[in-house]
Amino acid sequence: MQNYKMIIEYDGSRYKGWQSQKDTDVTIQGKLNSVFSALEGRSVEVQGSGRTDAGVHATGQAANVKLTVDKMPKEIKDYVNQYLPEDIGIIEIDKAPERFHARLCATKKTYCYRIFNSSDPNVFGRKWMYEIREPLDIPAMRRAAQYLVGRHDFAAFCARAQKKKSTVRTIYQIEILQNEKEVDVVVTGNGFLHHMVRIITGTLVEVGEGKRTPRDMVEIMEKGIRKNAGITMPAKGLTLCNVEYENEM
Amino acid sequence: MQNYKMIIEYDGSRYKGWQSQKDTDVTIQGKLNSVFSALEGRSVEVQGSGRTDAGVHATGQAANVKLTVDKMPKEIKDYVNQYLPEDIGIIEIDKAPERFHARLCATKKTYCYRIFNSSDPNVFGRKWMYEIREPLDIPAMRRAAQYLVGRHDFAAFCARAQKKKSTVRTIYQIEILQNEKEVDVVVTGNGFLHHMVRIITGTLVEVGEGKRTPRDMVEIMEKGIRKNAGITMPAKGLTLCNVEYENEM
Repeated sequence: MQNYKMIIEYDGSRYKGWQSQKDTDVTIQGKLNSVFSALEGRSVEVQGSGRTDAGVHATGQAANVKLTVDKMPKEIKDYVNQYLPEDIGIIEIDKAPERFHARLCATKKTYCYRIFNSSDPNVFGRKWMYEIREPLDIPAMRRAAQYLVGRHDFAAFCARAQKKKSTVRTIYQIEILQNEKEVDVVVTGNGFLHHMVRIITGTLVEVGEGKRTPRDMVEIMEKGIRKNAGITMPAKGLTLCNVEYENEM
Repeated sequence: MQNYKMIIEYDGSRYKGWQSQKDTDVTIQGKLNSVFSALEGRSVEVQGSGRTDAGVHATGQAANVKLTVDKMPKEIKDYVNQYLPEDIGIIEIDKAPERFHARLCATKKTYCYRIFNSSDPNVFGRKWMYEIREPLDIPAMRRAAQYLVGRHDFAAFCARAQKKKSTVRTIYQIEILQNEKEVDVVVTGNGFLHHMVRIITGTLVEVGEGKRTPRDMVEIMEKGIRKNAGITMPAKGLTLCNVEYENEM
């Protein structure tokens, strides 16, 4: 049995998220499982670095799978890409140590929330960006973002916080990038709670719209109450860009 | 009556081309005509700089339309964009002189043929690029392209040359741009014959694949026979990028 690590990209528009479901295979993991199972001639499961929600995209999702098939990684990649739908693709696949587990070994993840900040039409990015017509105050968003960097309790930025589970996470960096009509909120952390990036972005957007001040972030975090934070941004603007492992596993 | 000039972008994937047809409105012009007619309260026709074929895209199609409605250009733009489908959008609209005609006044057009030159999947560009797995010889393609620049008879690069109509055109520039996995063939000319950019690109691709030499272009042009040139590249890789007018009309 050989363990493989892979990097996957997908346009999540028509999928019910990453995680496979019993009664449907309209999930990214479901599509991958069925192609890898066909290759193996037995049922195998692809293990992702984490779930992505319905409608969320990836340019750098990481996953692993254990196979017995006697093929080179390049052959596996070509086989699988040939049978995957055109909105899911494997960019890289390589042999990995037995102990490598895409979810348990992940140390950092980077998500990008893409905003099309213009009243112009957005024909070519319409599936992967969320439109906000009025110009956002980018410097204010940048000041607000800095309060979130570090090790904090992000309960206020979690869709369904469970009392028994820690809501403490570390955010290493938040960048607000502006390029012509596009504004990207790029967040790197050691892990993310349910809807965390979308709620963080929603709160930063409300700062950018002048509905909140950057300083408001402090109290939102301290009180830890979901309703104090901003809206959950729609899924379509969110992309999982990169997953990192120690020692480049 | 006020004449307006506009710049339009569209994802041509699901359309039967630019030109409106009697029995269908699944054309770009058809969609524009119906929204502008609704705005005017009478039937008006949007005049494009030229037709684009079924499946061809645009980031900078130019057009004009004559309206009596008493609105600012910005209001017209917002109204029309609100009612257009999300894969067609007006980027700019401005008042133009009475004599401005988007087709008759056009002096230069630039098309870009986008190739995804990799055996990797192309999830996010799959609708707007054509995939060629084997690496193309870019320097050879650049040498071949130079033979096409200038004023020539392009009969060999025309899908249905008509004896009575001139097939002489001027190509001002052909650039072959390479950026990571993408190779773009960017052609600027004073006008283009039917399928001309797609046949030119198909011929250059055959040079890039080693099936022809750059020098072959000379004989292909001199003989002027369609079957001597290369394949017609699929529509989905082609985008009309820019239309120029004298004196920035």
